[in-house]
Amino acid sequence: MKYPAILVEFTKSHDVGDLKKSMIGEQIVLGGWIEDLRKMGKMVFVTLRDASGRCQIIAKDQAGEDVSKMTRQSVIRVQGTIQETRARDFDFEIKANHIQLLTAAIHPLPVDPIGRVQSNIDTRLNHRALDMRNQRTSSIFHIRHVALQSIRSHLADRFTEITTPKIIGSASEGGANLFSLEYFGRTAYLAQSPQLYKEQMTMGLERVFEVSNFYRAENSHTGRHLTEFTSVDIEAAFMDYTDVMTTLESMICRVFKDISDLCTVPLANLAHELAVPSAPFEVITYQDALDELQEEGHDLSFGDDLQDAHLRIVGKNHPGFYFLTDWPMSLKPFYIMGRDDNPDISKSFDLQYGYLELSSGGTRLHDASTIRGRLIQQGLNPEQFADHLEVFGWGMPPHSGWGMGLDRLMTILTGTDNVREVVLYPRDTDRLLP
Amino acid sequence: MKYPAILVEFTKSHDVGDLKKSMIGEQIVLGGWIEDLRKMGKMVFVTLRDASGRCQIIAKDQAGEDVSKMTRQSVIRVQGTIQETRARDFDFEIKANHIQLLTAAIHPLPVDPIGRVQSNIDTRLNHRALDMRNQRTSSIFHIRHVALQSIRSHLADRFTEITTPKIIGSASEGGANLFSLEYFGRTAYLAQSPQLYKEQMTMGLERVFEVSNFYRAENSHTGRHLTEFTSVDIEAAFMDYTDVMTTLESMICRVFKDISDLCTVPLANLAHELAVPSAPFEVITYQDALDELQEEGHDLSFGDDLQDAHLRIVGKNHPGFYFLTDWPMSLKPFYIMGRDDNPDISKSFDLQYGYLELSSGGTRLHDASTIRGRLIQQGLNPEQFADHLEVFGWGMPPHSGWGMGLDRLMTILTGTDNVREVVLYPRDTDRLLP
Repeated sequence: MKYPAILVEFTKSHDVGDLKKSMIGEQIVLGGWIEDLRKMGKMVFVTLRDASGRCQIIAKDQAGEDVSKMTRQSVIRVQGTIQETRARDFDFEIKANHIQLLTAAIHPLPVDPIGRVQSNIDTRLNHRALDMRNQRTSSIFHIRHVALQSIRSHLADRFTEITTPKIIGSASEGGANLFSLEYFGRTAYLAQSPQLYKEQMTMGLERVFEVSNFYRAENSHTGRHLTEFTSVDIEAAFMDYTDVMTTLESMICRVFKDISDLCTVPLANLAHELAVPSAPFEVITYQDALDELQEEGHDLSFGDDLQDAHLRIVGKNHPGFYFLTDWPMSLKPFYIMGRDDNPDISKSFDLQYGYLELSSGGTRLHDASTIRGRLIQQGLNPEQFADHLEVFGWGMPPHSGWGMGLDRLMTILTGTDNVREVVLYPRDTDRLLP
Repeated sequence: MKYPAILVEFTKSHDVGDLKKSMIGEQIVLGGWIEDLRKMGKMVFVTLRDASGRCQIIAKDQAGEDVSKMTRQSVIRVQGTIQETRARDFDFEIKANHIQLLTAAIHPLPVDPIGRVQSNIDTRLNHRALDMRNQRTSSIFHIRHVALQSIRSHLADRFTEITTPKIIGSASEGGANLFSLEYFGRTAYLAQSPQLYKEQMTMGLERVFEVSNFYRAENSHTGRHLTEFTSVDIEAAFMDYTDVMTTLESMICRVFKDISDLCTVPLANLAHELAVPSAPFEVITYQDALDELQEEGHDLSFGDDLQDAHLRIVGKNHPGFYFLTDWPMSLKPFYIMGRDDNPDISKSFDLQYGYLELSSGGTRLHDASTIRGRLIQQGLNPEQFADHLEVFGWGMPPHSGWGMGLDRLMTILTGTDNVREVVLYPRDTDRLLP
C-alpha cells in the first residue's frame, strides 16, 4: 500500500527504510522523531528516525518552525528532496523544504531511547512507550513478531487454530495459583492453560493449536516467571508423544531459521548471534539426568523432582536443545499416560535449552476410568471433573500434545536472560497497577 | 510430515483426505470414528470419518474385534489396502485386514453429530466436543482458522504484532462493564480493548496489530454479544482515519477472497454462498443515516445515537459493507479527534455490514492537553489517566486505528446469525461454570 499523492496533514509518503539511493531527485514526505540535531551556521542537520530506520535531513534553520530549537525525540514531518550526501554514515540525505513539528517532546526525558545513558529495566518498563524507541527494545519485539508468524505458519498447514476460553468455571488442571474473579455472582477463574479444552477438541478437529495468553497467580520475581504469559499449545489425535516431539523439534528449527534469515538487523542491534539448531535434538532420560547428577555428588532417588540447581548442572552438560524423557508418573499431571512396560514411567517429555525448561508434553490418557483412578491417586476429586470425564465416553481418540512458553523461547532468540525484557508490560510493573 | 513406517499402537499412516484413487494397492493405516456401519452377510461396511473426510471400509466381521457390534462414533484404527469399489459414493474403498477399537462411544449419544437428529444450540454447546464432529460445526471452525491466518498475513507485512496485557490496573477506556479480580491484594481488571496500550506502542513501533481475547461484563443474550470475545486491532502512526479505513477495507476483501478460494468444502457444508466484496466500500455519513431515518418516519436529532432498530432500517438500504462516518463527537470516546472545520464532528467511522456494526475506528488525539479537556468534558478524571497522559509528553506521533469484532465477522463469513455458533465455548454455557 502506498499513500496517495494528496496527503493529510500528518501522513507520510515513505518509511525511511523504503528510501534508496536510486531515488535521488524524488520529492518525499517523511514522518518520524528527532534522534539527533546539530546546528552548523545557518544549516541544521537532523537525524530522523522512524520504526524502519534513520536518515539525515539537512535544512535551513527557517525551513518551517524554528528547527534548531526542537527537542530530541520530538515528532516531525519533513517535506523534501532526496539528494547526494557527503556524510560518511549515509548513502543519501534529504534536503528539506519544510519541517513541521507535530508533537514536542519534553526535555529532559525520563529515559534515553538512544541508549547512551543506560537505565535499569524497571525504569525502562515504567516508560515502555519511550523505551520502544530504543533499537535494542524494538528489535526484541520485531523478533517476537517474526517468531509468532513463523510458529503459526509452521503449524497452520496441519493443525486448526482454536481460541479456548480464558474465563473458566473450575480449576482446569486441579492446580493452585489461579486468579479468581466474580462472574455475575459466581466465582470463575483465569485459565492457566488450554489443557482440557484442547484435549476435547481433538474429538472432532483432530489436530489443534493455540497461541494465547494464560495466567498464573505466582508472585515471583525470578526473571523466568510471569503472571500473564504467552503459551503455544498443540494437541493431536492419533499421535503419540514421540510424534509431537517431532512437531515441536521441527517448529523450533523453523523459527530459528526464519529469525536468522529475516531478522539480521534486529539480531545485530542486540549483538546476538543466533545458532540455528538442527534435528534430531539429543534425547536423555530422567534416569540419565539422575546419573549425571550422581557424578556431581547430588544423590537423587527415582521420583525426586529436578530442582533449578539440578537442571543447571544437567544444562551444563547439554548446553543447547535436548529432550528430557521418561519422567516418573508421580511427577506428572493426572492426564499423562504411563508406559506399557513400566507404569511408573510416563510417556512424556520436557524440551530443555540448557537449564531452561521450554515445553512439556506427552501422550494423554483417553480412557475415562484410568483418568478417574489417576485423579483419585493425586488427591483430586473426580466429581469436579465430571463434565470433562463425560466427554471421554463419546469416543475420545488417543491423543498427545505439548505446551511451550513463548516468553522463555524469546529470551533465547534475543539473547536476553529475563522474560521481563520480552513482554510489553510485565504485570509486576507498579506503574500499571496504580 | 509423514508418519514413520513403524507405527505406535494408535497412530495412523494417512488422513482420509490424503487418499487418492491412484494409491490403489497401497497398504495404509487409518484412524477415525465410525460414522455408519452396516452388516451384510459375513461382511461389514464401515463409513470411517476423520477431520479430513470420510471413506468406506469393507471388512470381514472377524477382522479384529467384533466389528459389527461397535457403536457409532467409536474411535477405531484400520489397517488395510486401498482397492477398487462398486459403491456409488466413493472412488475407492479400504479392504481391512484388521480393525482395532480404540475407544468405545456410549449409546445413545447425547447429540447426533451426523445431524440427522437436530439439537438446539444449548444442547450442542453443552456437548461441544461431540458437536465438533458435526460437519456444519467443524466447517465453522475451519473457516475461522483460515480467517485468522488471512487476517494476520494481510497485516504482518506492514504492522508489528503485539500482545498487550489483559490484566490491567485501571479501566482502560474509563468505561463500565469491567470484570474485576483480586491481584495480590489489589483490585485489577480484565481489559475490554487494547486501546491505550496500542496507542502507546505507536511511539516506537509505529504500526501495530493484535488479535486477542478481550472481556466485557455484560450479561446479555442477544446472539451478538459475548463476555469473552476476539478482537482484531490495529493502530498506526502517521495515518489518519481514511488511511486505516483503507487498511480495514483491503483486509476484509482479502479475508473473503481467501475463504472463498480455500474453504469451498466448509462453505458447501454450511450451504453458504459467500459474496466477495470489492473496494471501495460505500461511505455514508451519520447525517445521511439521519436523513434516511427521517424518510422512514424516525425523527432523530444530531447527537442522538443510532439504536438497533435504526441500524436495521439503515441496513436495509445498505445490505453489504459500508462505512458510516462523521459521527458527533458527543457519541465518541475521549481519545477521538474532532474535525478541523467542525469540532462537533469526529474523525471516525464504523464499518457496517447491513445493520451489524463490525468495527469502529478513527483518528486519535495526540495532544495531551486536548485529551485532558475531553476527559473532563466526558466526566472522567484525568488523574486516573495520569500515566497514559504522561506518555503523550515524550513525543507521541499522530495516529489512527480501529478495532474489529472477529466473532461478528465470523457470523457473516459462515452465514450463521449467532455469535454463539462461532465461539468454541461461549461463556453463558452453564456447563462450564458449574
